Amino acid sequence: MKKGIGHYHIGDAFDDFILIKSSARGVASNGKPFLTLILRDATGEIEAKLWEITKEDEEVFIPEQIVRLTGEVNQFRGKPQLKIFSIRPSNASDGVQVEDFVAKAPVEKEVLMEKLTEAIFEMQNPSLQRMVRALVKKYQEGLLTYPAATKNHHEYVSGLLHHIVSMLSLAKELHTLYPETNKDLLYAGVILHDLGKVKELSGVVTTSYTLEGKLLGHIPMMVEEIGNMAKELQIDGEEVLILQHLILSHHGKAEWGSPKPPLIREAELLHLIDLVDARMNMLNRALDKVKPGEFTDRLFALDNRSFYKPLFEDN
Amino acid sequence: MKKGIGHYHIGDAFDDFILIKSSARGVASNGKPFLTLILRDATGEIEAKLWEITKEDEEVFIPEQIVRLTGEVNQFRGKPQLKIFSIRPSNASDGVQVEDFVAKAPVEKEVLMEKLTEAIFEMQNPSLQRMVRALVKKYQEGLLTYPAATKNHHEYVSGLLHHIVSMLSLAKELHTLYPETNKDLLYAGVILHDLGKVKELSGVVTTSYTLEGKLLGHIPMMVEEIGNMAKELQIDGEEVLILQHLILSHHGKAEWGSPKPPLIREAELLHLIDLVDARMNMLNRALDKVKPGEFTDRLFALDNRSFYKPLFEDN
Amino acid sequence: MKKGIGHYHIGDAFDDFILIKSSARGVASNGKPFLTLILRDATGEIEAKLWEITKEDEEVFIPEQIVRLTGEVNQFRGKPQLKIFSIRPSNASDGVQVEDFVAKAPVEKEVLMEKLTEAIFEMQNPSLQRMVRALVKKYQEGLLTYPAATKNHHEYVSGLLHHIVSMLSLAKELHTLYPETNKDLLYAGVILHDLGKVKELSGVVTTSYTLEGKLLGHIPMMVEEIGNMAKELQIDGEEVLILQHLILSHHGKAEWGSPKPPLIREAELLHLIDLVDARMNMLNRALDKVKPGEFTDRLFALDNRSFYKPLFEDN
Amino acid sequence: MKKGIGHYHIGDAFDDFILIKSSARGVASNGKPFLTLILRDATGEIEAKLWEITKEDEEVFIPEQIVRLTGEVNQFRGKPQLKIFSIRPSNASDGVQVEDFVAKAPVEKEVLMEKLTEAIFEMQNPSLQRMVRALVKKYQEGLLTYPAATKNHHEYVSGLLHHIVSMLSLAKELHTLYPETNKDLLYAGVILHDLGKVKELSGVVTTSYTLEGKLLGHIPMMVEEIGNMAKELQIDGEEVLILQHLILSHHGKAEWGSPKPPLIREAELLHLIDLVDARMNMLNRALDKVKPGEFTDRLFALDNRSFYKPLFEDN
Amino acid sequence: MKKGIGHYHIGDAFDDFILIKSSARGVASNGKPFLTLILRDATGEIEAKLWEITKEDEEVFIPEQIVRLTGEVNQFRGKPQLKIFSIRPSNASDGVQVEDFVAKAPVEKEVLMEKLTEAIFEMQNPSLQRMVRALVKKYQEGLLTYPAATKNHHEYVSGLLHHIVSMLSLAKELHTLYPETNKDLLYAGVILHDLGKVKELSGVVTTSYTLEGKLLGHIPMMVEEIGNMAKELQIDGEEVLILQHLILSHHGKAEWGSPKPPLIREAELLHLIDLVDARMNMLNRALDKVKPGEFTDRLFALDNRSFYKPLFEDN
Amino acid sequence: MKKGIGHYHIGDAFDDFILIKSSARGVASNGKPFLTLILRDATGEIEAKLWEITKEDEEVFIPEQIVRLTGEVNQFRGKPQLKIFSIRPSNASDGVQVEDFVAKAPVEKEVLMEKLTEAIFEMQNPSLQRMVRALVKKYQEGLLTYPAATKNHHEYVSGLLHHIVSMLSLAKELHTLYPETNKDLLYAGVILHDLGKVKELSGVVTTSYTLEGKLLGHIPMMVEEIGNMAKELQIDGEEVLILQHLILSHHGKAEWGSPKPPLIREAELLHLIDLVDARMNMLNRALDKVKPGEFTDRLFALDNRSFYKPLFEDN
Repeated sequence: MKKGIGHYHIGDAFDDFILIKSSARGVASNGKPFLTLILRDATGEIEAKLWEITKEDEEVFIPEQIVRLTGEVNQFRGKPQLKIFSIRPSNASDGVQVEDFVAKAPVEKEVLMEKLTEAIFEMQNPSLQRMVRALVKKYQEGLLTYPAATKNHHEYVSGLLHHIVSMLSLAKELHTLYPETNKDLLYAGVILHDLGKVKELSGVVTTSYTLEGKLLGHIPMMVEEIGNMAKELQIDGEEVLILQHLILSHHGKAEWGSPKPPLIREAELLHLIDLVDARMNMLNRALDKVKPGEFTDRLFALDNRSFYKPLFEDN
Repeated sequence: MKKGIGHYHIGDAFDDFILIKSSARGVASNGKPFLTLILRDATGEIEAKLWEITKEDEEVFIPEQIVRLTGEVNQFRGKPQLKIFSIRPSNASDGVQVEDFVAKAPVEKEVLMEKLTEAIFEMQNPSLQRMVRALVKKYQEGLLTYPAATKNHHEYVSGLLHHIVSMLSLAKELHTLYPETNKDLLYAGVILHDLGKVKELSGVVTTSYTLEGKLLGHIPMMVEEIGNMAKELQIDGEEVLILQHLILSHHGKAEWGSPKPPLIREAELLHLIDLVDARMNMLNRALDKVKPGEFTDRLFALDNRSFYKPLFEDN
Repeated sequence: MKKGIGHYHIGDAFDDFILIKSSARGVASNGKPFLTLILRDATGEIEAKLWEITKEDEEVFIPEQIVRLTGEVNQFRGKPQLKIFSIRPSNASDGVQVEDFVAKAPVEKEVLMEKLTEAIFEMQNPSLQRMVRALVKKYQEGLLTYPAATKNHHEYVSGLLHHIVSMLSLAKELHTLYPETNKDLLYAGVILHDLGKVKELSGVVTTSYTLEGKLLGHIPMMVEEIGNMAKELQIDGEEVLILQHLILSHHGKAEWGSPKPPLIREAELLHLIDLVDARMNMLNRALDKVKPGEFTDRLFALDNRSFYKPLFEDN
Repeated sequence: MKKGIGHYHIGDAFDDFILIKSSARGVASNGKPFLTLILRDATGEIEAKLWEITKEDEEVFIPEQIVRLTGEVNQFRGKPQLKIFSIRPSNASDGVQVEDFVAKAPVEKEVLMEKLTEAIFEMQNPSLQRMVRALVKKYQEGLLTYPAATKNHHEYVSGLLHHIVSMLSLAKELHTLYPETNKDLLYAGVILHDLGKVKELSGVVTTSYTLEGKLLGHIPMMVEEIGNMAKELQIDGEEVLILQHLILSHHGKAEWGSPKPPLIREAELLHLIDLVDARMNMLNRALDKVKPGEFTDRLFALDNRSFYKPLFEDN
Repeated sequence: MKKGIGHYHIGDAFDDFILIKSSARGVASNGKPFLTLILRDATGEIEAKLWEITKEDEEVFIPEQIVRLTGEVNQFRGKPQLKIFSIRPSNASDGVQVEDFVAKAPVEKEVLMEKLTEAIFEMQNPSLQRMVRALVKKYQEGLLTYPAATKNHHEYVSGLLHHIVSMLSLAKELHTLYPETNKDLLYAGVILHDLGKVKELSGVVTTSYTLEGKLLGHIPMMVEEIGNMAKELQIDGEEVLILQHLILSHHGKAEWGSPKPPLIREAELLHLIDLVDARMNMLNRALDKVKPGEFTDRLFALDNRSFYKPLFEDN
Repeated sequence: MKKGIGHYHIGDAFDDFILIKSSARGVASNGKPFLTLILRDATGEIEAKLWEITKEDEEVFIPEQIVRLTGEVNQFRGKPQLKIFSIRPSNASDGVQVEDFVAKAPVEKEVLMEKLTEAIFEMQNPSLQRMVRALVKKYQEGLLTYPAATKNHHEYVSGLLHHIVSMLSLAKELHTLYPETNKDLLYAGVILHDLGKVKELSGVVTTSYTLEGKLLGHIPMMVEEIGNMAKELQIDGEEVLILQHLILSHHGKAEWGSPKPPLIREAELLHLIDLVDARMNMLNRALDKVKPGEFTDRLFALDNRSFYKPLFEDN
C-alpha cells in the first residue's frame, strides 16, 4: 500500500503520525462532549471523532498539532471516517514537522524557480521583461511557496509556481506551433496571471481568502500592481495596458470573473493555456488514485464529471 | 411645435440649422455618388441623403459641420428620413456654434458642481473625504463636461455630473430612511463610481471608447486610481479597500461587469441607487416625447420594453 | 448580552422561557424515542433534542407551547444546538404569552397604520384613493398583523405594514426627486402591491402558504381583487387597469412571477422601491448581528452572499 | 397552380384581386413619392411598390381596400416582391369582399361550435359545466370569429375555436388512455384556456393587442373572469380555484407567462395538449407548402427550425 | 391498509418479508458496527439500521437477500425509517422469491408484446416494418423485461415495453386527429426510440448504467444499430436516415441529449408523445399515493414540483 | 497592395479575373432587371450589381463562372460593393481556372498527408492504429480536399487535413508535457474527430450541408462509422468504445452537440486541442488583415469579439 491517508481503504488499520487540520467540539447523544477532527497528510484528509474528551484534550488537539494515532478506517454516511483507538500529541523526539504533512509540488521549488528565471531571460521586449522581473522579485517569497488555489488544482505548496512553470512550457510550444504569437507577451501573461493570489490567499498551510481577496479578488489587485510597477519603473508604451488586459481577461468571461473577455490574441491563448494546465493537473491527480476500469470521484471543478480510466491503460 | 429635430413628424417641412454627426459616401443605382448624412441637434438625430454630389460636397459636408437645410421629413423603411431640398454650410455670420446642437444636462454645470462640493463638505470621515476631494480635483475638467455614457442614460454634456448629483440626492434621502447606512461611504461611492468614464470615453461631442476603455473598462481603471491616490495621500486604513470594493461591485453582478458582487451594505445601496437614477433618466426622457395614451419607442437598455403613458397623466 | 436566543454564543448557559415552534419524534441509536424541538423567541430560533421522552412528553411539548428551559448552547454539525438540562411547560402563573416570543415590527402597528392613513389622505386622484381606501378597509385586520413574507424580509408580526410604510417614505422622496412621477399612482401601488399576502399566507405566528396561495399566488389574487372592487365601487377609467398592471408587474420579470414586466413608469419605480426596501431590511438585520470586521451568515435571498461590516463602522 | 398569392413563384404573372393589408409612403431616390403596399389574400402576403404616386393614389390605396392588380412576382433582397403593371380599386360590380381575402379555419365555425356544445353537454360536474357554459355564452361572438393568436398558430378567422375543438378531441382521447384524469376539468380547461384572447386581441382582420392585452395579458384577465363568473353564478367549492389555476398555469413556466407552473395533473396535461395542437397546426401548414425532399422556411415559434419533408411522403 | 412498504405511515408496525436492496457497514458512536439497509418491495423502499451486528450478520444481510422482519416505522431527520425488532433471512420454506418484491408493469408482458406485434402488423412501409421487426426480434428478451429508466418513470419490470405500448396508443390516436402524419414512421419511432436502453442499462432488478451506457448513451447506440440493421437487411432509401433522425432527436434539445432537434414532423410528435406518456406515468403514480386535499412529494423529474389532488376527485 | 479582393479598400480600381459565387436576379426601381453577384477569389468576397441585364446576361453570369471585370470598390450601407464598369466571361485563352479562385491551406496537401501518415506510423496500439489507417484510407479523397467547416475556421481547400495536422503537432507536444496521457488514443481522436465532415459537407468549392449532415451531423455519423469499421476489421476490446466516446464528446458539452461530455482524460484534451487550434486559426487570419493599432472585424465564432493588434507588433 502506498503511504498516506489518501491511499487507505475501508477496514484498513492506521498507525502513524498525522496532522490536525481542524477541530470542533460537539456534544454526543449521551451528553458527553467530543471532538470532530479533520486529519490530513500530504495525500489527503479524513474525519475522526474523539469521544468523551476532557478539558485538556480540547486544549491539546487543535489545528496544526501533529498527533500519533492508531485506529481503523470505517465508513460513516457513505464517507470514510477514522475510528480512533489511541491518540497522543507528537513531541520533539518524534522528529516530525508540519511541513511533512502538507502536499508539495512534485518538482522542487528551486528547480521551478530556475525554469522561471530562464524564461524571463528569454524575453526580449525590455518593458515586459523589466515589469515581470520586478514583480517576480517583489513577490518572490510567496511565489516560491503559495498554492495556485485553495482547492481544485495545484492546491499544494509551490502549486502556483508549478502551475506557472508548466504553463510556460505550454506557451513555448504553442509559440513554436503558432509563430505569429508574441512570445514575450505570452510569457509575461503566464508569469503574472495568478501572482495576485499571493495577496488573495492567506498563506500556505491552511489557506483561506484574505479580506482584500474577498472584496477585490486577485485579478483587479494584479491589474493595479502592474500599473503601480510601471509607474515606479517609469515604463511607458502600450505594453503596460496590454499586459493589464491579459491579466484582467484571463478568466475568459465576465461570469467567470473577467470584466473584459480576451481582446488580444495572446490573451485568448493565455486563457486557453491556463484552462489546459489546470484541467490536466486535476485529471492526472484524480486518475492517479483509481485503477484501470474504474471511475474517479466526481470532480467539482470539471462540472462534477466522474472520469473513466480505460482498461488498456497500464498504470 | 417644440423646436428641435426630435419633435418633427412625418410630413413636416424643415428649415433650420443642424449639425452633421456623420457622413458616408455611396453610389446610387444610377451610378452617381451620394452622401448619407446623420444630422443632429440637441433633441435628436435624423438620416438624410444628399444625391448626386460633387467632389466639393464631399469635402464640405463632413462631421461637426453645421449646415443650413430646407427639406421635408419623410419615411423610409419605417424610419424618418429628411428629404433635402437645399443645403449649405453655415458661415461665421450665421452665429451658430457646435455646442448649440448638442444636448446638455437640464441643470447648469456650475450649479451641479456646487451641489457636489456641498456634498463633499458634508463628509466627516477624513480618509474618504480627502480621497474624494483629490480625485474630483484631478478629473474636474472631464467631470464638468463628460456624458455618463455613450447612449441610453445621461448621454449628454455634463451627463456624468448630472447623474452624480441626482444620485447624491437619492443617497441623502436613503441615508435618512435607513440611518444605519454610512453616509460618507455612500457619498464617496456615488461621486467616484463612474469617474473612470472620463478615461473610458473619448470626449464630449462625438463620444466613443478609448483603447484603455475597451481593454480595461472604467471599473478596473478607477479601482487602480483609488489605490494610487491613497498611496499619494498616504492614506491607510480599511476605507481605501472598502471604497475600491464599492467601485468594483457597483454593476451588481459578474455578468454585468463587476467581478465581485456587492458585499458591503453601502455597495449594495450604491448599485441600487445607480439603477434607479439611470432608469428614471431614461424613462422620463422617453415618456416626455409621447402623448398620454401612447407607447414610447422600445428602450434597449430597459430590456427593449416600450412604456405606456396613461391617459390620466396631464402632460 | 442582549436578551434573546439570537444573541447566544456557543458555550452560553440558557435559563429562560422559550416557545416551541415545531416538534418531531425520532428514535435514538439506543432505541429510545426523543423529540427534536425547534425553539424560538423574537430574536431567532435554535434546535434542541429532548432525549428519552415519555408519552406525556410527546403530548406536552408541542408547537406553540411555551416552556421554561435550562441548558447550554452547543454546536452540532456546525450549527448551534441547545442542550437541555431541564424543561417544563409554562403555566398561568408564569405570566408569559405566545406573542412575547414572536418578532414584531420595530414600530407599533398603530403608528404604522396612522402613517398609512396619512398617505391615503394625501392622494388626490379620486379613483385611486377610493380603491385603496376600500381595499385597506376590507383587509385591515390582516394588514395590521401579517408578515410581509414567510422568511427573508419583514418576516415578523406587522411586517407587511412596516414594509408598506417604509416604501411609502421612499415613494414620497423619490416623487420629490423625480416630480414627473405620479405620486397617487405610486402610493396606490405601494399600498396594494403585497396586500394579496393576507390571502396567500396562512397567518401570523406559524406562517405557511394557503392552498390558493400555492395555486394562484398573491399577485393574480390581488389583480382580481382590484377588478372586483372597481366593479363594486363602480369606478371606470384607465386607473383600474393601470393599477392592476402595477400589481401584476411588481416582481419585475416573468421568471420572478410577473407575467408582464413593468410597462408604466410608476410600475418600474414600484418594483425598484420594493427591491430597495426588502434588501435594506435583510441587510440591516443581518449586519446588526455581527461586529465590525466580521461577515454575516450567507443570505439566501441576496444570492447567498455574505456581507462584511467594515472596521470603521461604530456599531 | 393552386390559387392564392402564397402559391406563386418568382417569375409568375399575377392578374387577380387582392387586399391591401398596409400602405406606407416613401420617397424614391429620384425624389418622387411612392407607396409600399403589403398585399394579402387567404394564402399569404407579398410586398409591392407603387411608384410615382399621385395624391389620390395615397387616398385610394389604403388598408382593407381590395384592388385589381396585374403584375409579376420578382425577387428583392432575397424576398418575393410583386412588380405592379396595373392596379385599380375594386368596385361594387366586381363582387369581391374583404372576407374573401382572409384565411379561415378549415372547418366551418358552425360545425366547430356544435362540437364545442357537444363537449359541454358531456360534462357532468355541475360547477364546471355551469361556469364553462356561462363564459362561452358571454364571449360567444368573439369565440366564433377570433384567431387563436396574431401569428404562429391558428392565426386565422375562427382559429381560436378551431384550436379549442381540436384540443377537445385530444383531451377526449387522452382521457381514454389515462382514465385517472378528470375529463370535466380537462374540458373546462381546454375550452377556457385562451378565451381571454377575445379581450387581449383587437379583432379578426388586422389583429393587434389591446391596451389591457399589453398591460395584463389574457391569462390574468381570464383568471379574473372566472372569479367574477363564479361569484355571479354563486358557485362555491374548489372547482373555481382549480379552474383558475389551470388557466394561470397553462403556459407551463414562469418565463413563458405562467406565474405558477402546473400543480394539478389536468393542468399539466392541458399544457401539453396545447403544445401538441399548436405545434401540429404550425407544422402541417408549413409542410403543406413544400414538396417532398424540401425544407420549410424557418419557423420562428419552433425555435427557428426548418423542417424536412421526406421523399417517401406522397404529398 | 394497502399491502406494501410504500403504504405505511409513521408509527405503523411492520411484520412481513422484504428485500434488501443495499447494505452498508458503519460504526456507531458507541464504537459498535452496524448496517444501514435499504429495504424494498414492489411499492417502495425504506431505510433501516441493524445495530451491533456480528460478522455473520454482515455476510447474511446483503443485497438481493429477502428477510423476514418485524419492526416499526419511525421518522429520522424527516424521513421514514424502519426500526428493526427482529430480522432473519428467508429460507426455502418461506416460499418467497426476489421477483415478488420488484415492481412490475400493471399489464402482463405477454399482453404488451401482443399489442406491440399488432402495431407492427399495421405498418405498411416495408423498409420501416422490416427494420422494426428485425430489431424487436434481436432485442426481444430485454424488451420484455427491462424498465424504461432507472428512476422517474416506468422504472419497473417491463416498464420499457409498457411505455412503448402506451405511446403506440397515443400515436394511433394522434395520427387519427392529424391524418397528415405518417403513421408507419411514427410507429417505428415509438417502438425503437428507447430500445437502446437494453444496452444502456445493466439489467432488470438492481438497474445501473453499463460502461457503454455511460460513455455513449442509448441514443447514439441505437442510431448505430439502425444503420447496421439496414446494412444487414440491405435496405436502402431515405427511411433509414429519417428513422435514425427520429431516434437521435427524440429528446428534443441538445441540452437534453439530442445533438439535433426534431426536423421532421413525426420526430417532433414522437418527442411530444414521449413527454406526455412519461409525465402521465409519473403523475398518476405519485397521485395514487395521496388522498384528495393533499400534495404529492416533490417530483424531481417534473422540476421538483409537488402536485395537488383536488378534493372533488373521488380517489 | 497584396493581390486579391480581400485586400482592396474603398475607392480602389479593380481590373482582374474573379469567380462568381452566387447570382440573383432583381428588379430595380426603374423596372429594369439586374443581377446581384457575389464575387470571390482566394482572399475574400464582394458584392456587385450588374444593372439593366439582358436575358443572355442571366444565362452567362452564373455561379462558378470566372469573369474579367473592371470597376471600383464603393461602399453601400456600410459594406464594400464592387461597382462594375465592364464585365465579360473568361474564355479558354485566358488561362484561368476555378481552383485559382478558391482559398487553400497554406501547406500543400501532399505535405500534410505525409505528416498524417507519419503520425499513424508512430502509433503502437494495434487496434487504434488499424482503425485509423482503415478509415483514413476509406475517406482519403475527401480528407485531402475538404474544408474543416463551411465558415469560421479552416474553411478552405484541405482545411480539414490542415486542422488535423496542426492538432497532431499540438497533441505530440502536450503528450510530452503530460506524459500520463495516452498518445495513441489522442492521435486516433485527433485524426478521426472531424472525419465525418466528409459526409456532413457537400463538397469543396461551394460547401453546404448534406441531408444526412443536417439530420444527423458529423458526430453520430462518425461514431457509427467507427463501430462499422471495428466490426469489419474484427477488432474487439475497449479501444472501440473509448474511441467512439472521444468522437462523441469532442464538442465538450451537450449544448454544443456532444450528448456526452468528455469522461476520459484524452477526450478532454482532444476537446481542448480542437478549441485551441480552431481559435488560433481564426485569430491569426483575422489579425493578418489589420495593421498594428487596429481592431479586427467582429468574429462571430469568437462570441462576436473584435480583437486588437498592439502597436508593438511588427506586422
